[in-house]
Amino acid sequence: MATYKLTLGYDGSTLGGWQVQPDRPTVQGLLEKALFRVTGESTSVIGSGRTDAGVHAIAQVASCRVPKWNHSAEALGRALNTHLPDCVSVTRVEPAVDGFHAIRDATGKRYRYQLQIGGVRDAFEYRYRWHVHGQVDIGAMRRAAERFVGTKDFASFQAAGSDRKTTVREVRACDVLVQRAGSESDVSGPLHLAIEVEAGGFLYNMVRNIVGTLVQVGLGKHPDGWIDEVLAAKDRKVAGPTAPANGLFLLWVSYPNAVEKP
Amino acid sequence: MATYKLTLGYDGSTLGGWQVQPDRPTVQGLLEKALFRVTGESTSVIGSGRTDAGVHAIAQVASCRVPKWNHSAEALGRALNTHLPDCVSVTRVEPAVDGFHAIRDATGKRYRYQLQIGGVRDAFEYRYRWHVHGQVDIGAMRRAAERFVGTKDFASFQAAGSDRKTTVREVRACDVLVQRAGSESDVSGPLHLAIEVEAGGFLYNMVRNIVGTLVQVGLGKHPDGWIDEVLAAKDRKVAGPTAPANGLFLLWVSYPNAVEKP
Repeated sequence: MATYKLTLGYDGSTLGGWQVQPDRPTVQGLLEKALFRVTGESTSVIGSGRTDAGVHAIAQVASCRVPKWNHSAEALGRALNTHLPDCVSVTRVEPAVDGFHAIRDATGKRYRYQLQIGGVRDAFEYRYRWHVHGQVDIGAMRRAAERFVGTKDFASFQAAGSDRKTTVREVRACDVLVQRAGSESDVSGPLHLAIEVEAGGFLYNMVRNIVGTLVQVGLGKHPDGWIDEVLAAKDRKVAGPTAPANGLFLLWVSYPNAVEKP
Repeated sequence: MATYKLTLGYDGSTLGGWQVQPDRPTVQGLLEKALFRVTGESTSVIGSGRTDAGVHAIAQVASCRVPKWNHSAEALGRALNTHLPDCVSVTRVEPAVDGFHAIRDATGKRYRYQLQIGGVRDAFEYRYRWHVHGQVDIGAMRRAAERFVGTKDFASFQAAGSDRKTTVREVRACDVLVQRAGSESDVSGPLHLAIEVEAGGFLYNMVRNIVGTLVQVGLGKHPDGWIDEVLAAKDRKVAGPTAPANGLFLLWVSYPNAVEKP
């Protein structure tokens, strides 16, 4: 029995999210099938978190205990890739210490949410960006984003119906980044924004709810100080709408150094 | 009756190419359907060229004669986009002089072909890049690419079975561009190359055949001087394989200035 840490990228456009589902291909399902093909044994895979259908990952992390594998960790990654569809790619396989668990051991995560503000729709960006019509005040969005940083109760930003023990989370960064400046004269060159949120842990739909709320501020529907009111309300109905899944990317997951085998 | 010049981008991944087909959505078919919905009249659309299934376009150009449209050209573009799927986007509509014809009036075109050399496969690039395993000599590829420039007979680079009147074409540029340098230490950071070919006109599959041939030189299977032999042979069987469709982008099409209405 050997424990491995898998790092993987996926384009979630055509996937049913992370968790195994009966009727759609999912990252977990595809990975477990590939592991079965490669090792001949059923192996369950634990992801650092369950991304929803349509959500992408640049470097998701998963743990698994493989019954028998006599070759190198790199060879395991190459073998898995031959049994995975093009939209899922194992980018790294490392031997991990016994008992490594991708959810329990995670110490932090960073997500990026991509937006296109204004302009005509873009045939190459629609899978990876939420297209918001109108103009936004980036300064107001940045002032609002700062109000999320800290150890706070994010109950207003948790999907309705969740039942986590606590809704307090430590947000370490919430940055509004200009990826491409917009231009009034070029209809094919609208503003591309990214909102990146880093935290010790996240509630279900937390990033998409933060983004939907920041866009309300950007569009001038609320001042940046509104964020404090929404946080204080601890009520999902007070915050902005949930941004669609297609703009969301899990960028990375951090673990203590001791997780990888020397 | 008003003539328009349409500029459009499309992600060809899920499309059956340009030309109308009975069983798959195509750019021409989708555009003609959208024009019918918007104007209530059947209108045929002429593209500057027929891109194959899987081929993308950044700025394809099409001409059409619209029976009745009482609003602005911009409004026509917006209306068409509401009736097109996300993977096709009309980025510009301009009134054109009577008789403007997107094929006949074109004076030049530029294509880009994107490659990933080495590295593990990338979940976000597979629709837009040909993944070539191994290492390439970029200098040799550039020396080989220069040999395509000029007015030459490209019979060896035309898809078998074509019957154009002449296979002589003027290639104005053939550039090998490094889009991202590769790194030995980072498995997720392989070399990204683009080969751009500009010409007065192209034969069927010419860019994909030039790319497949340049890759043979890059991999060291032939010296750069081999290109002259392949050109001289005027035989498709002598050149390299046809590169797959997914890496190909039509970048732009040029027309005389007089085409657009003042």
